[in-house]
Amino acid sequence: MSTTAQIGVTGLAVMGRNLARNFARNGYAVALHNRTPARTRELVEEFGQEGTFVPTESAEEFVAALERPRRLVVMVKAGDPTDAVISEFAPLLEDGDVIIDGGNAHFADTRRREQELRERGIHFVGTGISGGEEGALHGPSIMPGGSKESYASLGPMLERIAAQADDGAPCVTHVGADGAGHFVKMVHNGIEYADMQLIGEAYQLLRDVGGYSPDEIAGIFRAWNTGRLDSYLIEITAEVLSHVDAATGRPFVDVVADRAEQKGTGRWTVQLALELGVPVSGIAEAVFARSLSGHTALREASAQLAGPTPQALGPTEAATFADRVEQALYASKIVSYTQGFHEIAAGSAQYDWNLDLGAIASIWRGGCIIRAAFLDRIRAAYDSRPDLPSLLADAEFAEEIAEAQDDWRAVLVAATEQGVPAPGFAAALSYYDALRADRLPAALTQGQRDFFGAHTYRRTDRDGTFHTLWGGDRTEVEA
Amino acid sequence: MSTTAQIGVTGLAVMGRNLARNFARNGYAVALHNRTPARTRELVEEFGQEGTFVPTESAEEFVAALERPRRLVVMVKAGDPTDAVISEFAPLLEDGDVIIDGGNAHFADTRRREQELRERGIHFVGTGISGGEEGALHGPSIMPGGSKESYASLGPMLERIAAQADDGAPCVTHVGADGAGHFVKMVHNGIEYADMQLIGEAYQLLRDVGGYSPDEIAGIFRAWNTGRLDSYLIEITAEVLSHVDAATGRPFVDVVADRAEQKGTGRWTVQLALELGVPVSGIAEAVFARSLSGHTALREASAQLAGPTPQALGPTEAATFADRVEQALYASKIVSYTQGFHEIAAGSAQYDWNLDLGAIASIWRGGCIIRAAFLDRIRAAYDSRPDLPSLLADAEFAEEIAEAQDDWRAVLVAATEQGVPAPGFAAALSYYDALRADRLPAALTQGQRDFFGAHTYRRTDRDGTFHTLWGGDRTEVEA
Repeated sequence: MSTTAQIGVTGLAVMGRNLARNFARNGYAVALHNRTPARTRELVEEFGQEGTFVPTESAEEFVAALERPRRLVVMVKAGDPTDAVISEFAPLLEDGDVIIDGGNAHFADTRRREQELRERGIHFVGTGISGGEEGALHGPSIMPGGSKESYASLGPMLERIAAQADDGAPCVTHVGADGAGHFVKMVHNGIEYADMQLIGEAYQLLRDVGGYSPDEIAGIFRAWNTGRLDSYLIEITAEVLSHVDAATGRPFVDVVADRAEQKGTGRWTVQLALELGVPVSGIAEAVFARSLSGHTALREASAQLAGPTPQALGPTEAATFADRVEQALYASKIVSYTQGFHEIAAGSAQYDWNLDLGAIASIWRGGCIIRAAFLDRIRAAYDSRPDLPSLLADAEFAEEIAEAQDDWRAVLVAATEQGVPAPGFAAALSYYDALRADRLPAALTQGQRDFFGAHTYRRTDRDGTFHTLWGGDRTEVEA
Repeated sequence: MSTTAQIGVTGLAVMGRNLARNFARNGYAVALHNRTPARTRELVEEFGQEGTFVPTESAEEFVAALERPRRLVVMVKAGDPTDAVISEFAPLLEDGDVIIDGGNAHFADTRRREQELRERGIHFVGTGISGGEEGALHGPSIMPGGSKESYASLGPMLERIAAQADDGAPCVTHVGADGAGHFVKMVHNGIEYADMQLIGEAYQLLRDVGGYSPDEIAGIFRAWNTGRLDSYLIEITAEVLSHVDAATGRPFVDVVADRAEQKGTGRWTVQLALELGVPVSGIAEAVFARSLSGHTALREASAQLAGPTPQALGPTEAATFADRVEQALYASKIVSYTQGFHEIAAGSAQYDWNLDLGAIASIWRGGCIIRAAFLDRIRAAYDSRPDLPSLLADAEFAEEIAEAQDDWRAVLVAATEQGVPAPGFAAALSYYDALRADRLPAALTQGQRDFFGAHTYRRTDRDGTFHTLWGGDRTEVEA
């Protein structure tokens, strides 16, 4: 127990264990702690040769094993377990020590914890870690919040264990104060939901309208993955679609129950967007699509509803259609990211985080689930113009959408006529057309609100707030 | 001060004042209280002849003026002001007295307050009141929660002041325990958002694709209002669209700024639906459409984006198109209400409210903003089959949608091709087609989740939870 550890990890389930191994393999001495010491011993037995581990069996021992300022990574379940661990360790710490929460906390909880610990002289770093088990072990995308001082102490270590983008940059940055890291991770997950939904719609359209088999669609996705859609999710989609179920000999995707599950971060992204007044319709449709898929009774009760049965196209038309679906998917993806980054900008303004949107795109280029060539384009857009009001205002993205939009519309027309649900594609196009619109029916909405609730309205031709005496002589008064 | 009042109203802004007058005009002696006594005096001066008012100038005097069990209606702003008023009055009350909160509280606050007051022997009735100022005065739709005992004492009075449906039934019922009333009012407002958005899309399509003027569209809405769309919102839409701005001589709707505002209940409806796992995509798109309309900088930055300019149809085709828009609007409306009632059913299960969905549809038939002939159809559907899993499972609604769906699709095709945003129509159709679908891409989503996060999946052909060793030999293991 004479070794002094540079970092400690408490909570050694698979994510914590892999993160600890990642630190050790990068040359750091890692103190280990787990509520059940058996798990600590197992880790050392199985992976002890990978680096320097300092196993400990009590909170006191764990804290004593760490060099000052201490860095404790907490890898337990979000919610009460996190608070319990903090309550256990905080009294043992000293001024300037750092607690790092690497779980999927809600950023509002992180803000609360950061403030409470700051008042006790302890730094609290809520950090998003994306990439799953494999990422934790081999290099995740890391999104730490908290104070600048804590990042000065912690950052160099995170930069060593993080994934690297293609240009060699580590996929970690000091995101911003208090809950900024967990906030950005939340929106990352929301975007991930949207990406997955759009891929699902593309798949369904290729299957039902294109008439392709899952294995053929895997080939199409593989081809897409060599172009602008190059990304981890497209890559694994091809893997999943080409997989054959050993038990039945059928395509794997056909034997999986079509009821999608979710863990909460997608929902949080939409709930907060509603709070912030940011339209994230693509993310919302993705969350709703998952919940709808699980309502078995509702689906069974609706199976007899009238509607077209999709007719598959012939091979030549199908190939053209597949190209169009690529355009629709790409255009919809631009819109999803536009909405997600809008939410990040709005959160930044709301919580005074001063977030660097280009840096956030940059650290998502590797390690995380949504890693994609595309993100380097977003990084470039924000780096060249940090005050970009929207990704759609970037000239290159606007041009790509301009080229895609005829096909995008054609795909939606096919989906609409053939009865294939494409809520994500549709929400994205509606958002795009609404932003383009010279006039929106919101003017009528305001007129209705003034009629039934005297909620007043503004005019296009002069300042002020007005009300029409709808129940009277319908003259206009200034409110 | 010798008169004993049967009910008291504290908070005499326009809603409180009109409610007090409504009670008085229906023969009840009404005690009045306001933080600023001047407002109390004004009410008596101006409307004192309408009935028996008992003006009071202090909390003690107000409470003393009420017969036991006391009934105090609180009509102040939701949030802290409501808590402040409760804190002021509760210590003056006795076992069995009733505090009624008629503001737009979040139902979770109502649940908290109800529990706190119940422990002190006081009944707390959070009640939704819909119908705006006019409704409060002449007969609103009233949605009271709280205990059965409180409704026994309060219900007969509410039944006197409430609106009546066409069949004479009062638009009030004991909705359910604690926060049920405010919950149902919240969903009412969410449905109202969706209704207004769908009307706005119908208007925009008639204008841009149909080529009709606002006044012509008013005529179309008036015609629709004689059929199955007969409703308050359709009626006032015609009024707003036919109104001409006196200052400019232009259609009123063209001089109103197209930035819609909102107060929060629509957003709450979606946030809670996300919590409950209920897809309410139509309500969500309505909320997002309002927030999008207000993002002026974003809209300006997007004005140059590529897309079609709508081409108006000739007169004959336009008339056909208008009929199709009616079908699309009606079908989308059925979906909105399906989603809203699904949320009510889910809330009922979550909070053990045992809500009567038919009764809720019934009390919305008059007084409130969404009052409509349509609601009597919903009442009938639930009355004949209280366990209806979804409005779409009702044979008559399913048949109407079956008739409408070709036109519904045609309208969406036109919107998509011509670049007119129709997020509400599109979300409704996607929901309909997703519920109809035999297989959803949720199976692919589950495969992806298992690939990157070992989240496991279920199979269609046998029970259990499974995981494929994607990083290994891709055999399947039971999880």
